[in-house]
Amino acid sequence: MTPAPVSPAAPRVAPVWLARYRAVRAQSQALCAPLLPEDTVVQPMLDVSPPKWHLAHTTWFWETFLLTEYAPGYQLFHPDYAYLFNSYYNSLGSRVNRADRGTLSRPALADVLAYRAHVDAALTQLLTERRDLPPVFFELLELGLQHEQQHQELLATDIKYILSTSPLAPAYIGEELAEVRVSSEELRVDSADALAPTLNSSLLTSNSKAASWLPVPGGVHRIGFQESGFCFDNELAAHDVLLAPFELQNRLVTNAEFQAFIEAGGYRDFRYWMGEGWDLAQAQGWEAPLYWMRHADGWHRFTHHGLQAVRPDAPVTHISFYEADAYANWAGARLPTEAEWETAARHFGATTSAGTWLESNLFDPQPLPADADPAQCHQLLGDCWEWTYSAYHAYPGYARAAGALGEYNGKFMVNQLVLRGGSCATPENHIRVSYRNFFHADKRWQFTGIRLAR
Amino acid sequence: MTPAPVSPAAPRVAPVWLARYRAVRAQSQALCAPLLPEDTVVQPMLDVSPPKWHLAHTTWFWETFLLTEYAPGYQLFHPDYAYLFNSYYNSLGSRVNRADRGTLSRPALADVLAYRAHVDAALTQLLTERRDLPPVFFELLELGLQHEQQHQELLATDIKYILSTSPLAPAYIGEELAEVRVSSEELRVDSADALAPTLNSSLLTSNSKAASWLPVPGGVHRIGFQESGFCFDNELAAHDVLLAPFELQNRLVTNAEFQAFIEAGGYRDFRYWMGEGWDLAQAQGWEAPLYWMRHADGWHRFTHHGLQAVRPDAPVTHISFYEADAYANWAGARLPTEAEWETAARHFGATTSAGTWLESNLFDPQPLPADADPAQCHQLLGDCWEWTYSAYHAYPGYARAAGALGEYNGKFMVNQLVLRGGSCATPENHIRVSYRNFFHADKRWQFTGIRLAR
Amino acid sequence: MTPAPVSPAAPRVAPVWLARYRAVRAQSQALCAPLLPEDTVVQPMLDVSPPKWHLAHTTWFWETFLLTEYAPGYQLFHPDYAYLFNSYYNSLGSRVNRADRGTLSRPALADVLAYRAHVDAALTQLLTERRDLPPVFFELLELGLQHEQQHQELLATDIKYILSTSPLAPAYIGEELAEVRVSSEELRVDSADALAPTLNSSLLTSNSKAASWLPVPGGVHRIGFQESGFCFDNELAAHDVLLAPFELQNRLVTNAEFQAFIEAGGYRDFRYWMGEGWDLAQAQGWEAPLYWMRHADGWHRFTHHGLQAVRPDAPVTHISFYEADAYANWAGARLPTEAEWETAARHFGATTSAGTWLESNLFDPQPLPADADPAQCHQLLGDCWEWTYSAYHAYPGYARAAGALGEYNGKFMVNQLVLRGGSCATPENHIRVSYRNFFHADKRWQFTGIRLAR
Amino acid sequence: MTPAPVSPAAPRVAPVWLARYRAVRAQSQALCAPLLPEDTVVQPMLDVSPPKWHLAHTTWFWETFLLTEYAPGYQLFHPDYAYLFNSYYNSLGSRVNRADRGTLSRPALADVLAYRAHVDAALTQLLTERRDLPPVFFELLELGLQHEQQHQELLATDIKYILSTSPLAPAYIGEELAEVRVSSEELRVDSADALAPTLNSSLLTSNSKAASWLPVPGGVHRIGFQESGFCFDNELAAHDVLLAPFELQNRLVTNAEFQAFIEAGGYRDFRYWMGEGWDLAQAQGWEAPLYWMRHADGWHRFTHHGLQAVRPDAPVTHISFYEADAYANWAGARLPTEAEWETAARHFGATTSAGTWLESNLFDPQPLPADADPAQCHQLLGDCWEWTYSAYHAYPGYARAAGALGEYNGKFMVNQLVLRGGSCATPENHIRVSYRNFFHADKRWQFTGIRLAR
Repeated sequence: MTPAPVSPAAPRVAPVWLARYRAVRAQSQALCAPLLPEDTVVQPMLDVSPPKWHLAHTTWFWETFLLTEYAPGYQLFHPDYAYLFNSYYNSLGSRVNRADRGTLSRPALADVLAYRAHVDAALTQLLTERRDLPPVFFELLELGLQHEQQHQELLATDIKYILSTSPLAPAYIGEELAEVRVSSEELRVDSADALAPTLNSSLLTSNSKAASWLPVPGGVHRIGFQESGFCFDNELAAHDVLLAPFELQNRLVTNAEFQAFIEAGGYRDFRYWMGEGWDLAQAQGWEAPLYWMRHADGWHRFTHHGLQAVRPDAPVTHISFYEADAYANWAGARLPTEAEWETAARHFGATTSAGTWLESNLFDPQPLPADADPAQCHQLLGDCWEWTYSAYHAYPGYARAAGALGEYNGKFMVNQLVLRGGSCATPENHIRVSYRNFFHADKRWQFTGIRLAR
Repeated sequence: MTPAPVSPAAPRVAPVWLARYRAVRAQSQALCAPLLPEDTVVQPMLDVSPPKWHLAHTTWFWETFLLTEYAPGYQLFHPDYAYLFNSYYNSLGSRVNRADRGTLSRPALADVLAYRAHVDAALTQLLTERRDLPPVFFELLELGLQHEQQHQELLATDIKYILSTSPLAPAYIGEELAEVRVSSEELRVDSADALAPTLNSSLLTSNSKAASWLPVPGGVHRIGFQESGFCFDNELAAHDVLLAPFELQNRLVTNAEFQAFIEAGGYRDFRYWMGEGWDLAQAQGWEAPLYWMRHADGWHRFTHHGLQAVRPDAPVTHISFYEADAYANWAGARLPTEAEWETAARHFGATTSAGTWLESNLFDPQPLPADADPAQCHQLLGDCWEWTYSAYHAYPGYARAAGALGEYNGKFMVNQLVLRGGSCATPENHIRVSYRNFFHADKRWQFTGIRLAR
Repeated sequence: MTPAPVSPAAPRVAPVWLARYRAVRAQSQALCAPLLPEDTVVQPMLDVSPPKWHLAHTTWFWETFLLTEYAPGYQLFHPDYAYLFNSYYNSLGSRVNRADRGTLSRPALADVLAYRAHVDAALTQLLTERRDLPPVFFELLELGLQHEQQHQELLATDIKYILSTSPLAPAYIGEELAEVRVSSEELRVDSADALAPTLNSSLLTSNSKAASWLPVPGGVHRIGFQESGFCFDNELAAHDVLLAPFELQNRLVTNAEFQAFIEAGGYRDFRYWMGEGWDLAQAQGWEAPLYWMRHADGWHRFTHHGLQAVRPDAPVTHISFYEADAYANWAGARLPTEAEWETAARHFGATTSAGTWLESNLFDPQPLPADADPAQCHQLLGDCWEWTYSAYHAYPGYARAAGALGEYNGKFMVNQLVLRGGSCATPENHIRVSYRNFFHADKRWQFTGIRLAR
Repeated sequence: MTPAPVSPAAPRVAPVWLARYRAVRAQSQALCAPLLPEDTVVQPMLDVSPPKWHLAHTTWFWETFLLTEYAPGYQLFHPDYAYLFNSYYNSLGSRVNRADRGTLSRPALADVLAYRAHVDAALTQLLTERRDLPPVFFELLELGLQHEQQHQELLATDIKYILSTSPLAPAYIGEELAEVRVSSEELRVDSADALAPTLNSSLLTSNSKAASWLPVPGGVHRIGFQESGFCFDNELAAHDVLLAPFELQNRLVTNAEFQAFIEAGGYRDFRYWMGEGWDLAQAQGWEAPLYWMRHADGWHRFTHHGLQAVRPDAPVTHISFYEADAYANWAGARLPTEAEWETAARHFGATTSAGTWLESNLFDPQPLPADADPAQCHQLLGDCWEWTYSAYHAYPGYARAAGALGEYNGKFMVNQLVLRGGSCATPENHIRVSYRNFFHADKRWQFTGIRLAR
């Protein structure tokens, strides 16, 4: 997820800010606590950054945008770190090629943690001692917190990908699931056998009720950020849209439903697919969501808990837009636009399920409770990012910020698609009805899912 | 331009159809008349197809969708041609890899012309002798004509690209311009010198009046095909959109205006650019529109007439979306959305300038007449395809056709941008206010231009 | 085949030179006579050059190295041709990227033929009128003739490759073989079936006697050019080598023998292969020599005569070094070194079979006559280039020539392997026991074959 | 360096073997002792393997070839490790793609060390308790030791490369050299300035005497392994070669001498270069040996001790064959063949300088002492691998071993060049006059240098 700045924040009470700052910073490190130093270095694909890099880049953000500007006499931790840990800001000079992030063993994790401590000390001192910090400083402080939280979601999904590449399928969380572990040898199924009839018999038995269709009235609706508090600049300006009446399913598509698509040959029938998606799926041999693999006992998938059987009633996740769209075509439905999604979310009064994100997080979207009300719209916020059929473009009246932060969001506003709703890996205050996430149509390593419209 | 099918056509009078069929078929061949056999074979980049391939593929379309279905006893001209000349229809089996179209010297041009004659004879016989052809036949006939005309525009732009790759800069049209021909040696300017101050002195002197801004009222407007006659399925369904009031420039951006962007360093300042566009422009060393090259005497460009000096008052063309967008940012404006463009075109009563397309066509967008009324909106239709800031997505209610023709348009509806208005190379009845053309953001070899909105 | 210069030539009798010049020049054009203009443009793989390019490049050689130096007042045919038709001489400035030779439709074939006529007229005039041409001029004249003949072999093999890429499998020579033509559809065999047991039954029935092993004595032998007349600089200096006694087979490996290797799984058993060869063969899916394809009736192959059944007793050809070496390993033998090959060829008194190359050439290596003497060594010269297990390195005492011609041979003397003996496509006076041809280990489009040693 | 098997070893005294085994195993780990876990994971280029991988792969070799064969009841440490740590043995099944070695964070370094301990314990037990081990076991034991030592040299050079990629230029050895550390910012010199005249003034002042030329008599010489003890199969069979008399320089080419080549424009003059070398050098922008960079104060280079000034009298190293050959051409000399090199080494009675390899190793080739006798031949063994102009081919009579170990050497015997003499990073008993190392012509990350012949 590539982030985007702005919007003022209210009373400037330093102790409150300090507490938030400390909590966010601690959470980034807590996410890496289960890792070995080796895990923090590697970059198994271009979209994934090494955890060590995330820890350092978020720190560089504080150093570059706040400390060098507002902390008199601040000493850079190291003169080369700006080169090493700038992500994509052309305004701020040259930087390590993105594809090379995983070739740098140094600075070591310990050095990066020392860098974090250095910056934390300086920022703590600044917040504690200075009384004359200007409003723009607090706007940047807010942005820095939001930015670091966005990287927390990336940390969660990048760690999953990193651990998945080992045939050992190591678990990020807990040991209690170790019994599902099997030798990777056992898991290898010849592709020739991969679609054999016997496997069909392992079709997942679902306990879910069929999804119900909920109507949303047409007419002029207002979308975009309209509340108080922080938002990113890409949620502005709020504006009216004209919609025809439509219906939305009351829950996300489940693994069992998606398996029916697989078993019906959905991955082998071009008629359901966008042309570029079909070509990619053929070239890469897709036949199921990312992380799924066939096992003699049925489908398994890699999770933060290691290798597990696919749970039929949980939402399907780790699919590209192409797969979401093909599924919708196969199912005789379609994906909603982002205006439809936001209008529906507002119409149904979507709220996040409470719960502290990190402490209890399973990093695994959960099934709908058996007694969920079919007349209600569920799983809108905090389960899976829902692909919409809307390109990620600027809203009417959008303007890029001046300076380096103008690169935060605006330059990505073409060739990507909007996702809505937040996932199980999204920090809580990044989930709101107006929040716009965006990825290219082929991306699968985020917690992405499907909601049908018609 | 990738096409899209359907919509019924009215009275089934065979002689009228036959005349249209003959005219369209003749026009494809007339476009290739100035070429040598060698010119019809090559594929200097992936987007370009050899003219020989266009001549054969359009013929394959008639053979596959009409003759094999409706002409009893029709004999295929050659059993391998379906493999050789299918473009992208998965429904119709395997085909030559697109990148390999330029490696096939056989079938020769003469064979392809014989193929055309064979199919033309069969179709003529069918139209002349059969009295019981069903309505769907005439729909396919209409589609075949539209399809072949779409390829005529590609022929015009692909031929331009093919001829441009030779250092000899051969002219497609006429000889009268030969005096501007210079040895390519003279034209090579060291890249070190390429932006030297002396060149700035050759800044194009324009006689154009400044563009004026014309207001368009906001509110609910209807877009999409609402007239009678043929349209492609992607123009449907007509539907209402809600727009804020906006202004549009009364003409296209000129070469002189675009040169000011170049000389102001527009190609070297990332702040104006989308991120992916900036990376591409750097990687490929863009510093001007496609076909432009610096000459000691100022900017020149390759045209269908050979190498010519850039005309300051003509519309700038052969630019990607990235360049159009960067220019708009630099100019403090933006590109219109497709809904804005169509609404404005309807509001201003856009009409094409009369004129027979092929006979008098210069394949070169013309300057606005000096006495053009600044209160009117000019050059909306038939000059340059105008990039919009709208992704090419399905309209509400769009549904893919069944069968192979379902691949005509629908599978391209992601990752591309809409262009509107038609160009100097677009056959006349392909220019209408609801017509949706689409290309990826990086494409430059079509006649693409810029209209500013704000 | 990349050529190499030098060695003096004897009496300077202009009419004799002129006759040779005309014969060689005419032969290049005669080779292209069966082609259509379309065939002369394409470049279906990097190693292949368009015939039009060969015709022009050989002409550029005469213009650059002889006419501009020795013909006072010579007018270049076109100022851009030096850029277009330089092959690889850095000394002579920038040039068209090799990979782009097939994208240039212009200059057209007719222009290239006019270029040839222009140069031929100037050279004829020079040879006819000037009496004071220095010895070095005649050395260059000799080199120009040798150079053009080297390109004649490339013309023959490049034309074969070009025609082979069409599913229509057009014949270069004659029509009499048309009856073997089948639709390419019939020829497509599913790769799943490709190695099915039923095909084994079509194992080629050979009439050949088993090859015999002929002993060659060890000791000190002299290799390199030791005769009079022309040689390339890479054949010098002649020098002594010390060899252990060895045996050589009395003929080339046949198609039937090679098919036994195929059917025994030779392409699927890494133990016979060099590591880089194995990886390449897997990546490209090799399962037979280039141009072979499985047919329901047994193996067929593309030839200058179109598609034909594989002839069991003809020498196998169109194989890479990797395949030759793997075959030898499978057969319990090895490839000879170039010193062994030349020593054996001298020992057995190898001579070319007489015959005029072009007029009667079938471009197809022929089987050994049934009554061939098993005590003689056959097919050493003029059948297939025989891969040796010797790297193409400079002989002791070799020195690059000064100037541009120093690039003719020397800069290729690493990373390639020597081939000996000449092929059915080699012009006659390019076949001698000291002649060193060289290609990378993966190349297959020349007439390359296998002779076993032990 | 890719290794190769065989040759019997004499008395089977287990305690002696055990001591050697322990010493070699300990040395591999000692080499990694200065590293952080992060350093052991990354693979910054394809030729480099992560140190963790080397530690595991050498262990896999023991487990696969000795323990599973000769230790009854041996338990594999982990069923997946054979897949993870097989290098290139097709005989032993599928394996991790070489390019992906640096994406696997797991198994962690600690797991690999546990793997080593597990295998060491089993092998120790086997050697201590079993009395009936067959001779072939001891041959494999010898091979395992040689194999692990070959990987020690790779460890040394791969670690150097890994540390070099960080702009921080961390030192592998010692801290005493820290004062030469400068910020990488200071070190960046604009490429435009890179060859400016002022830098020429920093031409290295050398204290070396000019190299002297030492004659070596021609005639028949015997090369290949002729001593007792272990050798690799590629050193066999010993055989006679016939050489012309030649001269060899009495020492390696120095940095000062190589800098003269640089400053004379050697990297910008194609005439000195092999064609493929020139193209590569241009494409990659080579202008000095690997690890060299221009500094305002003159040339610096990355070493195991961090960044240091180039020492004028030390041998130049980290050059490709292409650079070695170009230098020789520029200097009016040539590279020796491997037969010449070995003959000269035997003629001059080359011996390694004593000294314990690991303990005192600076991993940096040293200058010749000022008082070195110019009539002696120096630096033949243990300084830099010396590029020869001999392809790495099998010696006469060479035969691949049966089974997986047949893949040890034989399958690499094409497309590479032989290097002789051993480097400062080569374990001592891997340095002998018959030892054949081999790399592709473009490789630069080993300690490779130049000795001139003529």
